[in-house]
Amino acid sequence: MRGRIEIAEVEPVVDCGRYAAKAVVGDEVTVGADLLREGHDHLAAAVAYRAPGERSWRETPMRLDTNDRWLGTFGVDRMGPWSFAVGGWTDHYGTWADGIRKKHAAGQTDLDVAIEDGARLLERRTDLPAAASEVIAEVIAVLRGTGTLSDKVAAATDADLLALLERHPERLDLTWSAEYPLWIDRERARFSAWYEMFPRSEGAFWPAEGDDRSPRSGTFETAAKRLPAIAEMGFDVVYLPPVHPIGRTYRKGSGGPHDLDPQPGDPGVPWAIGGPEGGHTAIHPDLGTLEDFDAFVAEAQRHGLEVAMDYAIQCSPDHPWVTEHPQWFRHRSDGTIAYAENPPKKYQDIYPLDFDTSDRENLWQALREVLEFWIARGIRVFRVDNPHTKALPFWEWVIAELRREHPELIFLAEAFTRPKMMATLAKLGFNQSYTYFAWRNTKEELTEYATQLAYGEVAKYYRPNFWPNTPDILTEFLQTGGRPAFKLRLVLAALLSPSYGIYAGYELCENVPLEPGSEEYLGSEKYRFRPREWDRSDSLAPYIARINWIRREHRALRDLSNVWFHEISDPAMLCFSKVAPGRTDPILVIVNLDPHHPREATTALDLGQLGLEGIGPFEAHDLLTDTTYLWHGPHNYVRLDPDVEPSHVLHLRAL
Amino acid sequence: MRGRIEIAEVEPVVDCGRYAAKAVVGDEVTVGADLLREGHDHLAAAVAYRAPGERSWRETPMRLDTNDRWLGTFGVDRMGPWSFAVGGWTDHYGTWADGIRKKHAAGQTDLDVAIEDGARLLERRTDLPAAASEVIAEVIAVLRGTGTLSDKVAAATDADLLALLERHPERLDLTWSAEYPLWIDRERARFSAWYEMFPRSEGAFWPAEGDDRSPRSGTFETAAKRLPAIAEMGFDVVYLPPVHPIGRTYRKGSGGPHDLDPQPGDPGVPWAIGGPEGGHTAIHPDLGTLEDFDAFVAEAQRHGLEVAMDYAIQCSPDHPWVTEHPQWFRHRSDGTIAYAENPPKKYQDIYPLDFDTSDRENLWQALREVLEFWIARGIRVFRVDNPHTKALPFWEWVIAELRREHPELIFLAEAFTRPKMMATLAKLGFNQSYTYFAWRNTKEELTEYATQLAYGEVAKYYRPNFWPNTPDILTEFLQTGGRPAFKLRLVLAALLSPSYGIYAGYELCENVPLEPGSEEYLGSEKYRFRPREWDRSDSLAPYIARINWIRREHRALRDLSNVWFHEISDPAMLCFSKVAPGRTDPILVIVNLDPHHPREATTALDLGQLGLEGIGPFEAHDLLTDTTYLWHGPHNYVRLDPDVEPSHVLHLRAL
Repeated sequence: MRGRIEIAEVEPVVDCGRYAAKAVVGDEVTVGADLLREGHDHLAAAVAYRAPGERSWRETPMRLDTNDRWLGTFGVDRMGPWSFAVGGWTDHYGTWADGIRKKHAAGQTDLDVAIEDGARLLERRTDLPAAASEVIAEVIAVLRGTGTLSDKVAAATDADLLALLERHPERLDLTWSAEYPLWIDRERARFSAWYEMFPRSEGAFWPAEGDDRSPRSGTFETAAKRLPAIAEMGFDVVYLPPVHPIGRTYRKGSGGPHDLDPQPGDPGVPWAIGGPEGGHTAIHPDLGTLEDFDAFVAEAQRHGLEVAMDYAIQCSPDHPWVTEHPQWFRHRSDGTIAYAENPPKKYQDIYPLDFDTSDRENLWQALREVLEFWIARGIRVFRVDNPHTKALPFWEWVIAELRREHPELIFLAEAFTRPKMMATLAKLGFNQSYTYFAWRNTKEELTEYATQLAYGEVAKYYRPNFWPNTPDILTEFLQTGGRPAFKLRLVLAALLSPSYGIYAGYELCENVPLEPGSEEYLGSEKYRFRPREWDRSDSLAPYIARINWIRREHRALRDLSNVWFHEISDPAMLCFSKVAPGRTDPILVIVNLDPHHPREATTALDLGQLGLEGIGPFEAHDLLTDTTYLWHGPHNYVRLDPDVEPSHVLHLRAL
Repeated sequence: MRGRIEIAEVEPVVDCGRYAAKAVVGDEVTVGADLLREGHDHLAAAVAYRAPGERSWRETPMRLDTNDRWLGTFGVDRMGPWSFAVGGWTDHYGTWADGIRKKHAAGQTDLDVAIEDGARLLERRTDLPAAASEVIAEVIAVLRGTGTLSDKVAAATDADLLALLERHPERLDLTWSAEYPLWIDRERARFSAWYEMFPRSEGAFWPAEGDDRSPRSGTFETAAKRLPAIAEMGFDVVYLPPVHPIGRTYRKGSGGPHDLDPQPGDPGVPWAIGGPEGGHTAIHPDLGTLEDFDAFVAEAQRHGLEVAMDYAIQCSPDHPWVTEHPQWFRHRSDGTIAYAENPPKKYQDIYPLDFDTSDRENLWQALREVLEFWIARGIRVFRVDNPHTKALPFWEWVIAELRREHPELIFLAEAFTRPKMMATLAKLGFNQSYTYFAWRNTKEELTEYATQLAYGEVAKYYRPNFWPNTPDILTEFLQTGGRPAFKLRLVLAALLSPSYGIYAGYELCENVPLEPGSEEYLGSEKYRFRPREWDRSDSLAPYIARINWIRREHRALRDLSNVWFHEISDPAMLCFSKVAPGRTDPILVIVNLDPHHPREATTALDLGQLGLEGIGPFEAHDLLTDTTYLWHGPHNYVRLDPDVEPSHVLHLRAL
């Protein structure tokens, strides 16, 4: 016989348990399931769960919510692979107790047999600890005693007795669901602020047009001088594009992606990994030594910053693997190695690895060892370049393998591709993912996208990392919207998504494209050094610092599942809130999405969602400007002039 | 290594394959799945499937639809348990062919190596049958020959070659999904028209108030005389409430559910099964013998009618099992058998069976043998009484067991209870289910409910059977809406749902309730005999016959997945269509849901859905009145006077 109780639609479950749902240390994980049994008998249910390495199960009770849905919650206090299952059983005594109460309430008096039925249900509980048995014995004595019916019913349905029996359930027909995986990360996997910088640009020299002097690369030592400013802006993670030797063959020139004629001194693209000096485990000699790298990492740590490395599985034609392990590459019929192509486009400076090579085991092992090499040097965060062009089973394997020793690892998937591919990478194990945020500009687009990420099926495993810009992505919105655009896109990224990042230069509102219609930067740092004047008086650095401070101060901003969109009358204004657990500490963000014009509007706040229902006037304290407004009810007037400040970030407080 | 290709979200799949999706003989079953592989290489995919008893798999190709979704279709030509799986693999040659075409189109000329790469991809196909190998060899010769590049590219990308290679795919990294079950019924499991009758009422005598004569039961012989009229109305299934001996103990009197004082001659409720004459395998002596039953069934068959029996797992206190197998019932502490209760309500005339009895195996076997007994007498359709109060694992077991020999069995679940319980019974194996239709009256309610049944998750396994009335359900709508209400509810039931049924007396618009606010009939046939004047001139029988004729004539009405709601300007008018495969033979139904007032409105037809887009004027032929209208475009005027005719059933035809 199959299970006596029908258990279905267990959540959070991804692809029938093929993949793990995700949460972070400190979360309360709520498990839901439909439980069904014939007839009117009462059911009871529990979630069984265990932490990594635990053999025995712990249990937490489930409660009937509505429509045969049961919910139970447990806290997760450590990283790694947890698992859970749902169990259900018939609550025979509870059924009887409910019945006797109803019969008594309906005035039935001929209940001697019914009372004795209950006594026998208690009597058969010979499995209880002594203290519980004593309580039970007392109740049985009352039921069989000479007291009134009311006394007997009261004793039989006593809340303490029912609680005792709930703690020691009789589970004659206990039925378990399958066991489901749950992956628990450290909190940074969900809540993080990233800053992307090319270390070679810091302390570098790049000659202006007509200047004959040679370019000079920055070093880890000079780049480290930038770390205090990054920390001061409130970031958690400093992400470095590849720091390895760069290929010469087919090197791109400093003119940009179409410049196939590099000049002496053109440093090449960091993603063309590998040269005579080494490959994925070597440091570019211009940047320094491995020890310099270590020192940079240590300096970052001193400033509370984690260094994220780039993991790009591809080789320049000069990578040592090309000669040492030619079998790891696909060969063409003339014996040459196949360069990357997306016909008719050619990427001759890049050799992809062949994940299906006959020497697969050694290749995959070598790729794993690259990660292990950097892990051994203290790196725990990897931004993975184009994971959607590498074999999917490789990711599942390598992430699972490394996590066994290092559950604290964080992999950010840099896949800007089809939605199901992006979702699949997250299922396979990536802890965070880039998104389409950069191209979601309107109120409708932003609302729809954030709602899908927060409440859709993907919410169980896909953690968005919102980037308003990257070295590859200078959006039209930023190109044309000026400083207000940079401010408002920062607010949206940082306050909609618990994880977000910016690429260096954002604070200076760099927004000149290579050419009209292109998202490439003019003078892109991918092809040259780009030293910057960080101390410009118009830098957004203090603004960024303020935003990151708000993120840290307010628990509500660490999550995405709490985002809520409120109506606001202007179609170019967005109004959303986040609340801490228990609908406390509400933060309300209002953004004028139009960087060119002042906008004014009236809000229609959902006060219940904000935990402010029926409280009368309340304070709206703008955390950006330290201004306080007195608001009344759902409808409040707002005006935002983008040249002054495109956003309100309001901390709402009952008076 | 896990599968090389990622395969997810396979459909139709119920609860991860725990239960079977359903279809009927003659269906084209479409299987969908998300298939993902890294990079730009082309994928190919197929559905593997096999019919009951087949060892080897057949395959049908899948095509990329959109958003990484692949679809493949296969026909099912016999009843029983089918299964299917989805397979995916990399199409290496297709990838190369697409690349060479693009490179050539882009004007690249240095393609000798690329052409040879393709030749080698063909050359390694040593697994092909001789004829295919010859074709391949010819293409290789062209590729290595002295022809122009254009000739070579043309040969390499020739449609016939690609089709040949699709028929003989090279599947180096073939990955299969899990295998999923699919249950195929005969068509009647989905498309059926039921008529419920109490055979004891046909040919019966029931004395009027003050008449001292004794009541007289009808018999199978007298009841059989009613069969031609039922067949003439166009029904498929005649469903009989229990025909077994009826208990005496706590028998209900003819006054109805509250009459606990039966008079001599009161026949009792047929669902109080069992008396000294026998139990579930006996025939009530008043109805005749088993042979009379057989003759009734045979007579029904002669009229094209299947007899459905009632399967009600419960016993009167006089049922033979009570003394023969007391262990099959739950006993109270005083040794008596527990009657049915839903505290504080008591049902003392009914003993439930104890599905968890220690003699479980014998009980379940006996319950199975009851079905087998009637199956042996030619019964293939069972209406199961209150299955939601019997152990769910029992249903899964007994239906699966019986289906092994008899895949043609149809079980209709009579569960009016919580939605998830109703859904679960359908998952467990019930072929049809009663629904909430009787209480869905408004445009909004009907649209929402039909949409959920047709397009929701339940559509994969839940087959609705719409009943506007039953012996237990005389709705307020019918009580107050008069003849127009009976007509319009019939049209809705019969044309919205492929399966529907009515309970005898519907054609006479019987609508007097036991008391205000009750859904019980006054003088309910459940408690007495109810002979009727079938020949009344106002009988709806001809109207019902017309509706059933329309159902049979138009393929579109055999399905639910094709239902489509069109806008119509009056909020009390409903407009829906169904089309045959390929959007042909459209039937458009317009109903005035208000039985009291004429309504007029303008339609806003979705002509694309009707297969009538861009065709100019078209005919709307009313199949109820044989009137033809000339309609133009989506907007057409409609007026329906319920006293004349509350519905249009329009067959739309291009001119």
